[in-house]
Amino acid sequence: MAKKITSKAEDYSEWYNDLVKEAGLAEHSGVKGCMVIKPYGFAIWDNMKTELDKKFKQTGHVNAYFPLFVPKSLFEAEEKNAEGFAKECAVVTHYRLKNDPNQKGKLIVDPDAKLEEELVVRPTSEAVIWNTYKNWIQSYRDLPLLINQWANVVRWEMRTRLFLRTAEFLWQEGHTAHATKEEALQETKQMLDVYADFAENFLALPVIKGIKTENERFAGAEDTYCIEAMMQDTKALQAGTSHFLGQNFAKAFDVKYAGKDGKEEYVWATSWGVSTRLIGALIMAHSDDDGLILPPKVAPLQVAIVPIYKGDEQLEQIRAAIEPLVKELLVKNISVKFDDRDTQRPGWKFAEYELQGVPVRVAIGPRDLENKTVELARRDTKEKNIVSLNGLAAQIESLLEEIQLNIYNRALNFRKENTHTADSWDEFKDILENKGGFILAHWDGTTETELKIKEQTKATIRCIPFDGDKSEGLCVFSGKPSKQRVIFAKAY
Amino acid sequence: MAKKITSKAEDYSEWYNDLVKEAGLAEHSGVKGCMVIKPYGFAIWDNMKTELDKKFKQTGHVNAYFPLFVPKSLFEAEEKNAEGFAKECAVVTHYRLKNDPNQKGKLIVDPDAKLEEELVVRPTSEAVIWNTYKNWIQSYRDLPLLINQWANVVRWEMRTRLFLRTAEFLWQEGHTAHATKEEALQETKQMLDVYADFAENFLALPVIKGIKTENERFAGAEDTYCIEAMMQDTKALQAGTSHFLGQNFAKAFDVKYAGKDGKEEYVWATSWGVSTRLIGALIMAHSDDDGLILPPKVAPLQVAIVPIYKGDEQLEQIRAAIEPLVKELLVKNISVKFDDRDTQRPGWKFAEYELQGVPVRVAIGPRDLENKTVELARRDTKEKNIVSLNGLAAQIESLLEEIQLNIYNRALNFRKENTHTADSWDEFKDILENKGGFILAHWDGTTETELKIKEQTKATIRCIPFDGDKSEGLCVFSGKPSKQRVIFAKAY
Repeated sequence: MAKKITSKAEDYSEWYNDLVKEAGLAEHSGVKGCMVIKPYGFAIWDNMKTELDKKFKQTGHVNAYFPLFVPKSLFEAEEKNAEGFAKECAVVTHYRLKNDPNQKGKLIVDPDAKLEEELVVRPTSEAVIWNTYKNWIQSYRDLPLLINQWANVVRWEMRTRLFLRTAEFLWQEGHTAHATKEEALQETKQMLDVYADFAENFLALPVIKGIKTENERFAGAEDTYCIEAMMQDTKALQAGTSHFLGQNFAKAFDVKYAGKDGKEEYVWATSWGVSTRLIGALIMAHSDDDGLILPPKVAPLQVAIVPIYKGDEQLEQIRAAIEPLVKELLVKNISVKFDDRDTQRPGWKFAEYELQGVPVRVAIGPRDLENKTVELARRDTKEKNIVSLNGLAAQIESLLEEIQLNIYNRALNFRKENTHTADSWDEFKDILENKGGFILAHWDGTTETELKIKEQTKATIRCIPFDGDKSEGLCVFSGKPSKQRVIFAKAY
Repeated sequence: MAKKITSKAEDYSEWYNDLVKEAGLAEHSGVKGCMVIKPYGFAIWDNMKTELDKKFKQTGHVNAYFPLFVPKSLFEAEEKNAEGFAKECAVVTHYRLKNDPNQKGKLIVDPDAKLEEELVVRPTSEAVIWNTYKNWIQSYRDLPLLINQWANVVRWEMRTRLFLRTAEFLWQEGHTAHATKEEALQETKQMLDVYADFAENFLALPVIKGIKTENERFAGAEDTYCIEAMMQDTKALQAGTSHFLGQNFAKAFDVKYAGKDGKEEYVWATSWGVSTRLIGALIMAHSDDDGLILPPKVAPLQVAIVPIYKGDEQLEQIRAAIEPLVKELLVKNISVKFDDRDTQRPGWKFAEYELQGVPVRVAIGPRDLENKTVELARRDTKEKNIVSLNGLAAQIESLLEEIQLNIYNRALNFRKENTHTADSWDEFKDILENKGGFILAHWDGTTETELKIKEQTKATIRCIPFDGDKSEGLCVFSGKPSKQRVIFAKAY
């Protein structure tokens, strides 16, 4: 029997929670605010990591590892960054527990083991990394420094949501140092392109590239570039950010380099990151009421083969018939599982693979054996066909490509259908209230207007898009001049 | 010019520190007790991870991720485990900083943001994982549960040593649950074999498999199996452990399963781990006064090609001559770098690759161009030969295999030469004082004797070896009966 998934139309939020739970992706732990990423969820993250890591290396980056803890004095060095994260950080104050003298078997914090200086559990690593870079950079020969780290970070959250908002999450953070502003800006842009390419071509997630307003900028950045995606409830989700940090951290940590002319200059910096939040985006962008729909490139399992049989002899006949297909798929680097478990019925298996978003399902029974056919089902459209076993591996290979593309196009069409332009305040409110989605509207460029719009509608400026219409106009709220339309939406 | 490395004979400990620093593997950070793993060190770790992860998956394990924090009440649930780690754990007590009212730009811990229950930064994850397994295991159908996690852990250390002993380190921890004692014991043994195979065939590090004495057992385990390696100062290093946890954690967290007969039973458990400590072992087991000696399988770069030339034209001729070799090596999955940097001289490059332990170096100059030859140098023996470019890729491939084997055999011979048997207390002390190394001696099986020997000589029982001589005898210290010889050594 299919597990119980609340329908998307009925309650989008519960639908999401049910999917995460029933597909075995993650769960809340006994540790407040922290999640357990279950094996199937982690396999998706592992695939994302492998692909991103490859792209980072192709663009000249190397991995390293920096400490989990940031001493308070380092944490506060870059003032804006510190201010941005101070309100949500876990603080280590002691380094020992001892037996509770009043309760046998219980422990208490040992007051004699108080740290001289408190340690912040990293919410992001600029401080600890720039304190290190200080010793690594002396001359222009040491630049650029192009380093990435895969790590866990902690940002204290009271209201959590699996993958989307948890106290601890997994991410990668790139931290680069450059001799010139131009080079740092180019890196910021390059990494945004890497993220956009990854989102669109690997996760089948269409994204809009743009720049954040001052108000939405990363604490300590001069500029934050981002990719924004639309979920199926038409809300926006920030899927990745790339920050141009200017010389803020170089100045805070006194990181200078001697140029070819011997002159000392502060170093220019970038940082960029994506997190396990992307798993949330993946689920919310593509899935349906029967379960996950995973793009083949990120799916831990691409093809499930389910035998329909009575007795061992028939099972062995099916196994023999299917074996060449399995081998051919593996040669093509397509992951495949022949599910011969006798503890579950075929119908249960079908539902389970649907729930898990396995892109292609093959079923084969006694009649298929006679006819040398199988039933080939695709998860994205639920289409089923009886096809010949002959040439099936090649057919599945191209079907997987087709599914990848179809999932992307479906999400792109959905975004197009739910993107509107508003030219007056009434129109803006009407769209938000009755249609939702992305609103392209003129904005006067002030934080004041931005905050008033947010206050009245909960919509925020997702980004000032790089591409598209650049014509000038009048702010939808204040009527003041505007240089281009920006994207408003309610967001995760 | 070669960077300054203290000679091994002069000061082993400084030699190690110099290697770690000069080869760019790691450094102490501004965060007390925590290290920065630099890109070259991290690349070695990444190679270890990839190989181990493959082995874990081949033996049926999957990855997941569990929270960094352990609430104090969970931490103390398994009493022995809690007692073992209580004295060295970082404790989070607050979740917010606020502006210091007395010092502009400074932050203080917000007293209003005190946690109701303190969180321990995981020193190991049995507690948080078994608290989770409790919900995952109901029936025999849910078993075995075979999960691994790659994570950072924190064990507070006052005296640190890069890779060998740091407050934060990276590791993997496997945590499995089984229906029967036999199955759990088999898993404990299997994972020890996986570690031993990895150490010997990937890291070229001969190890002795055995069981720890009660005194050296993991806190909360019924039995700890281990692999022990010998470093070049003849001291022992524990390279990996696999614990049979019995039903201790199942009882502490009330994890039961219903058998086929419906009867409820406590689950049986194992846990097993290796850490970034292995990088320390790798360095200390194989390297020399000129730098690292890395076994080819774990080396981030296997072949460095250095051109010796005057002017661009000659460089291009060399490049053209060497290009087919580079391609052939890449096809064979051999990592190779053609180092055409014009900022450094060939002699500098030779020293640098030696320092970094690159297994094979190829040098090619104008005379080689004429003769269609190269100079082929191996790092392990420093042997150099002029060889023909013709068939060179195949020659390098087999040379890499030979180097891998030679490094292993060298370490194995070293261990044999430094393993002694002692049949009297005087002999025992004499060997320890004048020769060092591993001592095979009879022991009466009591913790009392073990501790007295440690007190008097600093030697500990590294393990009760699985293989080798099992004949009975008399304890070297107490004269009481002994069932077999055990291995004593001073250890890291």
